[in-house]
Order: sequence, then C-alpha cells, then structure tokens
Amino acid sequence: MTSGRFIVFEGGEGMGKSTQARLLVEALEKHGLTVRLTREPGGTPGAEAIRSLLLDPPGDGWGPEAEALLFAAARADHVARLIRPALERGEWVVCDRFLDSSRAYQGRAGGVGDEAVLGLHAIGSGGLLPDLTLVLAAETSQVAQRLRKRDGDEADAIGGRSEAYHSEVNAAFARFADEEPARFRMINGDGSIDEVRERVWQAVAPLFEAGN
Amino acid sequence: MTSGRFIVFEGGEGMGKSTQARLLVEALEKHGLTVRLTREPGGTPGAEAIRSLLLDPPGDGWGPEAEALLFAAARADHVARLIRPALERGEWVVCDRFLDSSRAYQGRAGGVGDEAVLGLHAIGSGGLLPDLTLVLAAETSQVAQRLRKRDGDEADAIGGRSEAYHSEVNAAFARFADEEPARFRMINGDGSIDEVRERVWQAVAPLFEAGN
Repeated sequence: MTSGRFIVFEGGEGMGKSTQARLLVEALEKHGLTVRLTREPGGTPGAEAIRSLLLDPPGDGWGPEAEALLFAAARADHVARLIRPALERGEWVVCDRFLDSSRAYQGRAGGVGDEAVLGLHAIGSGGLLPDLTLVLAAETSQVAQRLRKRDGDEADAIGGRSEAYHSEVNAAFARFADEEPARFRMINGDGSIDEVRERVWQAVAPLFEAGN
Repeated sequence: MTSGRFIVFEGGEGMGKSTQARLLVEALEKHGLTVRLTREPGGTPGAEAIRSLLLDPPGDGWGPEAEALLFAAARADHVARLIRPALERGEWVVCDRFLDSSRAYQGRAGGVGDEAVLGLHAIGSGGLLPDLTLVLAAETSQVAQRLRKRDGDEADAIGGRSEAYHSEVNAAFARFADEEPARFRMINGDGSIDEVRERVWQAVAPLFEAGN
C-alpha cells in the first residue's frame, strides 16, 4: 500500500507560511508527486464556514473554550473529507497550520491547556499527526514590519490580539519542537523568500527520498 | 449567596418540549421568579450562528465527530454568556435541550460515545449539569403524527434522520434517566397539553419549594 506524506507549516503571524507552502508544493510536483495544498481553519466547505465564524465572530467574540471546539470541529471535517482520503490515495498533503496552532493559540496563549486540545483532536480527528511539521521563526522586528505591510490597519479576530499573546504563541511552537524533535523542524525565516525556500527543501528532502 | 435553578427539557422530536418549556416558565414567573427561557443549540448570538451551520450544513453534511464538536462549541458559548451568569444572579433557567441531547444523538445514535461527549462538555463548559432534567416520552405513533403535522415534508439535517436513529435516541434518554435518577424525571407526554403541563409541575414543585 502506498501512503502519502502529510507536511504542515506552523509559526506565528507574518512568517511567510502560505508563501513557503505554495513553493514547496511546486517543488514536490516537479518531482512528479500529486500534492494537495490546503490550510486551516478551512480546506473543505464545512471547515471554511467555521473559519468565517472564527475570524468574524457574531456577538462578543468567542471565549477560548468555544474557540478551541470550533477549531477542532473544522479540523475534524478537514481530516475526514480531505486530508485522510488524499493520504490514502498516496497523495502528499501540504497544510498551512494544523493541530499545533491550536495547541499554541488556544492551548497555551488562550489557557485551555495542551491536554484539552489534544483530547479534542483525539475525539474529532482520531489524533492524526503530520509526518513533518515545519516551524517558521524569524526576528520579531522583521515580523512586525511584514505584518504592517500585509495587513495595514486591518486585522482579524485572532491576528489582532496583543503582542504578549503572539509572543506566547511563538514560545509555544519552539517548546513543541524541543519536545518532539522527530516530528518538528525549526526553520529560520529571516532572509529572502528563496533563502527560506532552500531551508525548507533541506528539511523536506529526507522525507521525500525515504518515501520514493 | 442565592443561586438559581437550571431545568432542562429533553426527549426526541415532536414531544412538545418547547411548548412545555414555555408553560413552565409562565408558571414559575407567576410564583415571582425571574426565569430565562432558552434553547439548544442556540441561546446566544454565537451559538445561534453555530445552530444555523448544524441544521443547514454546507457541503456534504457533518460527520458525527464534527457535529459533536459544533454542539459542544455552541454549548460553551451558551453556558459562558447566558446560563452561568443568569444562575449566578439567582435567576432560574429553563432550557429546551442541553448536554443529554448530545449524549443521546451524537454519543449513542451517532456513535461518538458517551465518554467523548462528556469529555467535550468538561472542556467546553466546565461540566455544568442541570439541577433537573425532564425527559418527555410518548407513544411512537402519536409522535409520528405530531411531526407530520408540524413539519409537513420539511425536515432539517437532524430531524430528517432515519426512524432507527430516532428510536435509538429515545432509548438513550430512558437509559440516562435510569442511571441518574436524582437528576432525571421521565414525563409521560401522552394526553393533552394541560395534562402534560400538570405532570411537569408535579416534577418541578419539589425543587421550587426546596429553593424558596
């Protein structure tokens, strides 16, 4: 049985995750692989509808518990309808954010707790984990500059939170990578897009060679 | 400290829950209580938005896990924003469906499991339980007749499921009541609205007298 590989980009806001995810898909396709590029929250019609509720909440915004449950619900749909079927067909899946974002944002910075977030993932998505999680990390000053350029004065319900919240998020990703070195690679996000792309490829290549 | 009481109506489709909930609120108000009438899924702007996703799903409908997570997310918002604050102000809350509907529908009939549904409730809503849960149960033939009258050919994503699904739901409610007699009262839903109202009042009266 052939089985695909599941690669996730993680990191705080403005690290260039979606650009690097797209470039990685192009590189893998050049090697003859069938690759699905997707993102969280979202990726399926149901999960995209939940994404809209998350980023533009009705009423007074979501509390951390409701937010964690909504992310888990979107992920359950995404895993059942898109990710698992693609992997079972032998395709590769490259995803912009996944479980570890919930662990960092709702679990740590939001105070819901890591065990609770992992519990929701076990119930909702059978605990599916990526084969490789690439954490993009860059100098904070450079990130702030990128975000101002990208978002201007606009920010959604999550991107617009305090600096302390986002710095807790970045610290959480670094800690996860320390705790599970086999599943994580920290990628230095400073420098040009091409420089970062090359670092990503060096991290993915062993997986690529092992699987083919 | 004064604390309100939390009363929930449960049971399958077409049992007259919302009618009886409304009548109970009127009766309690006549005794001078401040009472909030609410329903699930829903009750707050956030939870009502999730309700719309549940009853009219985008794409191919929700799998049982995503559905269970969405109900838990709606409940987390409802508990945090409406139910707990009302109870803390000493008000009574009468709710049309709550946790035990998730246990019966997603937990048993949907196959997610009782432990998983209770786990989601612990994470999302601190495990809040009603002081009293009134399960309305009636002869199946009478219920089918009421539903045809009420819904005509229309049914939402949950009400429109198979007869076997709904009969599993009814069996589940009866079992919960057996397992936790202190928190449940089975109410015979056959007969006129007034007859059922009187049975409901007999079940609620002890709670009313104890609390005042």
